[in-house]
Amino acid sequence: MWYAVVNFSTFKRVVIGRPMRSRELNEKHNKLFWMIALPILSADLYSSVAYGPEAGLTELAHLGRSALWIVLPITGASVILLFILILSYIMGIIAYPSGGGAYSIAKDNFKKPWASLVASSSLLVDYVLTVAVSVSAGIQAVASAYPVIKPYSSSLAICCVLLLVIVNLRGVAESATIFAWPTFVFMACMILIICTGFIDELSHGFVQPSTPTFGEIPGGITILLILKAFSSACSALTGIETISNAVPVFREPRQRSAIKTYIALGSVTAVTLIGYAYHLYVRGVEVREDKTMLSQLAEQYFGHGIVYQIIIWSTFIVLILAANSTFTGFSQLSAIVASDSFLPRAFTNRGDRLGYSNGIMFLAGAAALLIALFQAQTNSLIPLYAIGVFLSFTIAQVGLCKRWLKVKGRMWKLKLAINLFGFIVTAVVTVVVAFTKFLEGAWIVLVILPIMISFSVMVKRHYDIIAEELRIDPKETRPHPHELVTLVLVSGVHRAVLQTVSFAQSLDSRAVAIYVGFDDESVDKMKLKWEEWGEPCKLVTLRGEFRSILAPLSRYIDRLEITECEQSNIHIIMPQFVTKKWWHNLLHNQSALLIRAWFLRNKDVVITTVPYHLQK
Amino acid sequence: MWYAVVNFSTFKRVVIGRPMRSRELNEKHNKLFWMIALPILSADLYSSVAYGPEAGLTELAHLGRSALWIVLPITGASVILLFILILSYIMGIIAYPSGGGAYSIAKDNFKKPWASLVASSSLLVDYVLTVAVSVSAGIQAVASAYPVIKPYSSSLAICCVLLLVIVNLRGVAESATIFAWPTFVFMACMILIICTGFIDELSHGFVQPSTPTFGEIPGGITILLILKAFSSACSALTGIETISNAVPVFREPRQRSAIKTYIALGSVTAVTLIGYAYHLYVRGVEVREDKTMLSQLAEQYFGHGIVYQIIIWSTFIVLILAANSTFTGFSQLSAIVASDSFLPRAFTNRGDRLGYSNGIMFLAGAAALLIALFQAQTNSLIPLYAIGVFLSFTIAQVGLCKRWLKVKGRMWKLKLAINLFGFIVTAVVTVVVAFTKFLEGAWIVLVILPIMISFSVMVKRHYDIIAEELRIDPKETRPHPHELVTLVLVSGVHRAVLQTVSFAQSLDSRAVAIYVGFDDESVDKMKLKWEEWGEPCKLVTLRGEFRSILAPLSRYIDRLEITECEQSNIHIIMPQFVTKKWWHNLLHNQSALLIRAWFLRNKDVVITTVPYHLQK
Repeated sequence: MWYAVVNFSTFKRVVIGRPMRSRELNEKHNKLFWMIALPILSADLYSSVAYGPEAGLTELAHLGRSALWIVLPITGASVILLFILILSYIMGIIAYPSGGGAYSIAKDNFKKPWASLVASSSLLVDYVLTVAVSVSAGIQAVASAYPVIKPYSSSLAICCVLLLVIVNLRGVAESATIFAWPTFVFMACMILIICTGFIDELSHGFVQPSTPTFGEIPGGITILLILKAFSSACSALTGIETISNAVPVFREPRQRSAIKTYIALGSVTAVTLIGYAYHLYVRGVEVREDKTMLSQLAEQYFGHGIVYQIIIWSTFIVLILAANSTFTGFSQLSAIVASDSFLPRAFTNRGDRLGYSNGIMFLAGAAALLIALFQAQTNSLIPLYAIGVFLSFTIAQVGLCKRWLKVKGRMWKLKLAINLFGFIVTAVVTVVVAFTKFLEGAWIVLVILPIMISFSVMVKRHYDIIAEELRIDPKETRPHPHELVTLVLVSGVHRAVLQTVSFAQSLDSRAVAIYVGFDDESVDKMKLKWEEWGEPCKLVTLRGEFRSILAPLSRYIDRLEITECEQSNIHIIMPQFVTKKWWHNLLHNQSALLIRAWFLRNKDVVITTVPYHLQK
Repeated sequence: MWYAVVNFSTFKRVVIGRPMRSRELNEKHNKLFWMIALPILSADLYSSVAYGPEAGLTELAHLGRSALWIVLPITGASVILLFILILSYIMGIIAYPSGGGAYSIAKDNFKKPWASLVASSSLLVDYVLTVAVSVSAGIQAVASAYPVIKPYSSSLAICCVLLLVIVNLRGVAESATIFAWPTFVFMACMILIICTGFIDELSHGFVQPSTPTFGEIPGGITILLILKAFSSACSALTGIETISNAVPVFREPRQRSAIKTYIALGSVTAVTLIGYAYHLYVRGVEVREDKTMLSQLAEQYFGHGIVYQIIIWSTFIVLILAANSTFTGFSQLSAIVASDSFLPRAFTNRGDRLGYSNGIMFLAGAAALLIALFQAQTNSLIPLYAIGVFLSFTIAQVGLCKRWLKVKGRMWKLKLAINLFGFIVTAVVTVVVAFTKFLEGAWIVLVILPIMISFSVMVKRHYDIIAEELRIDPKETRPHPHELVTLVLVSGVHRAVLQTVSFAQSLDSRAVAIYVGFDDESVDKMKLKWEEWGEPCKLVTLRGEFRSILAPLSRYIDRLEITECEQSNIHIIMPQFVTKKWWHNLLHNQSALLIRAWFLRNKDVVITTVPYHLQK
């Protein structure tokens, strides 16, 4: 298996680029100017305007046109929530100038690890959902304009995820310079739609024939429905934490850059959300299966011309960028958690291009699975969404409150008040989201979180136990050479065996060759050949009655252990063919690999592989 | 990966049973009495009556009721074809008393391997299709009675394939005794339906109100359509070769037993086909999407009572048995072809229970893929079917003709005439099937066959080249011990390193320890620790600038090669953690495995793994 992977190194070079040195990580070109960081880190939050209000209205769609005006109070509420969250997160950056999201804040302020694990697990789950939702919404945007691709949504979405993996394995800085502009274009498009709307309304009136009556209570409305709609609309607020997690990515002065970015982003998002929702209301745009609301509104203003195309495609691209920024977030968070031993250490390994390759690939795999399971339907994924984010928001707020109480400092009471208020709001939203969306999918997240947290705890415990087990006193315990019994597995008399026996004799002149035959005929033939070869060393022949090499070899080693030596002093040497072409591996080595794996696992023997490089 | 597999050995014991010794293969209880062999080996052919006539009529369904009578001539033609084929195959058994189907006959009678490869490849493809078609048809039969399962057809069919894998990994003889009786029950059911039909017709007349007019030419009929219907009906004839492939499975006298089985099977199949088709005609049963014709006929005679249930379930079971007999056929044929070096040798490995495990699992995987791709729809799979079988029939006939011409012997002219006639008929049918079904799916088979044949040729060529490359003159070339440079990879000072260094020093007192650090700090720390440990051997520290252990190590080895020794004389020793639980592997060894795989592939160095068995 590994062979195939390793063998593609040239392919990898072409797709992913030349390897980078560690110190390049700290070089200036990998650090982002805040105006460039804005589109990259904000794509996640800002792009949500493309589906947030629509997700909210979808909950009310069955009530008909009279419920359309509710988009205004709901969007208003989410904008207020947005400002509260941004303010809270700015407090976070003030408290931790070197950055760090909910996980670091919780780790620093809670003695027990559970709070930080809840934060990290819920964020990691939400990152996966962000990728799945954003990519699905992007494909849905394009499918609004080109219905022909609708049946292939899932496959296309998975292709996009694959593309993102490649881009992210290439590294952060490069994606930055490539990807900064499309987000600006999307922002410009949204502003253009909003301005066009107002100009239109200036000439045609702010209440148009299509405008539903404001404030009319639609039949069948309940508090629960409004809360549900609000919960769905809150999906527009995921992605706020990206900037606070990514402070180290900014150019100096980092703290100020990050705060500047937060304020700029908050303002532009608020304006966009309110303006967009307002025009949706004025034009009385309804939820449709085949066409996103953004696509409907753009169509009404610009027809199907070039402007419409730019809007659709920039929506698509910015949603893909949202998924892209999530890759950075996920892989960095998983690396931090892994370096605290709460996730497998493999997540801390940086790849050739200095990205955390394992995190990137894990995220992509999980997101692709979700896309496949939910058929790339944004509306089926939304109920799973947002709980994670609000859960981690809540924990971060509590952590910050604890910190202000402990550290105090300048204006600590104001800061405490802000985070306390933030805590109350986010806690309420978390409960509302979990409660209203429970049956529609939120339960999945509420089942997965405890599993992830227990996994983290188990991983940590395992690493701790192993560290203890491996610890030695360097003054007392020193290496001690010992006697070895050397066995060479031979399958006949040929060049690979020649090489292996030569190697074994270089190590130990008393090496013994072992041959396992499945019938008397082959055993006799081998004895004869060995004689003919001048008996380079002693040959032991074994009969494999189960047609397995493992069983007789295992019995032989058990006997050796009793009569001659400890198991750990038995050294088995065997050849392995190294093929020129990857598919030739199918034709060789099946038993060699099995024997090696079985013996390493079940016996305490040392196994040496002598590669024989096939020429053809 | 292998660990997980090997680790499940207890699970495997429970599911598959205790391992069997080689000689058990030849013991009597694995040999079949012909009356028992009949249901097992005939399930494939006999069960096809459940879908063959229906597949033929499906082609004519759009012509309406007036085309229903065509089932009679078409079935008549297939029964004639059946007798010709059985006669030809009996000639095959006479020529090769120890058995052997189209592949062995072709191998023995054609100088070039292409004919035998065409035969083997087309048979292997058809075995895969038999499993897919039979299992799908079985599920369809049950779905006729219980429409509620229809949406889950694919998943259920794949579950059946999985079940067959388990049964087949348990071995042939046991499946025999378990599975002999259901086929008899199915035969009894078919005979019961036919007798009930005749009794019914005795009292209600052989022409009933529902009987379509015989001989009326339906509007829109063409020769092509009739040929198409005939081609589809020929799918009822697949599976004839099973018996001739399986002669070694019979109890002595094998040849006579096999011929007896053939004659018994041919008679009962012919009676069933004709009787069944006749009643379908009399009752005017039409092709329906939701209900098989067999189910409709049974319903008309027996209502929905117990008899109907027995018929449905025995149809299901016999179709599953058809798939089951194919597992034996596929794995035996692939083992024979592999032992001729035309397929990877892994196919010749017998598993613990003496079945060819790799063949069994490959067949199951391919069939499951087909079922998933074609949504378990028998009618979509039928067009791919039968070409392979008739192609291999044709080749076998030519082979036998060549043999009679060469060997002559008693009554050789009669035998030659039979096979020559058989050749003409099967060749014509092959062309008809390929031509009429080309666009509906036969092209897939006609594309896959050349690919499989080229693969076989490539495999054979590879094995030949390797054998040549490995050949040595045992008198001239003898093993020669040489100087080695021993390197030990260390990651710190702990118990696993202690064990590895001890082992290395047991082999070579001049072993050198290598440490790769990613920054100056860790390198300095390691040097200090090593000193504190009393420098058990020389320590070389390397700086890994790419955060990769591979790059600096590789450069170091290149330097060693220039200054000190050949690459093949470098011996790298490294520890590997063996975990107690399989999932702990996710937490360890990622770099160790990567290093080992990379060095084996890219360098000519010998690699030794010293296992450290974690206690927890």
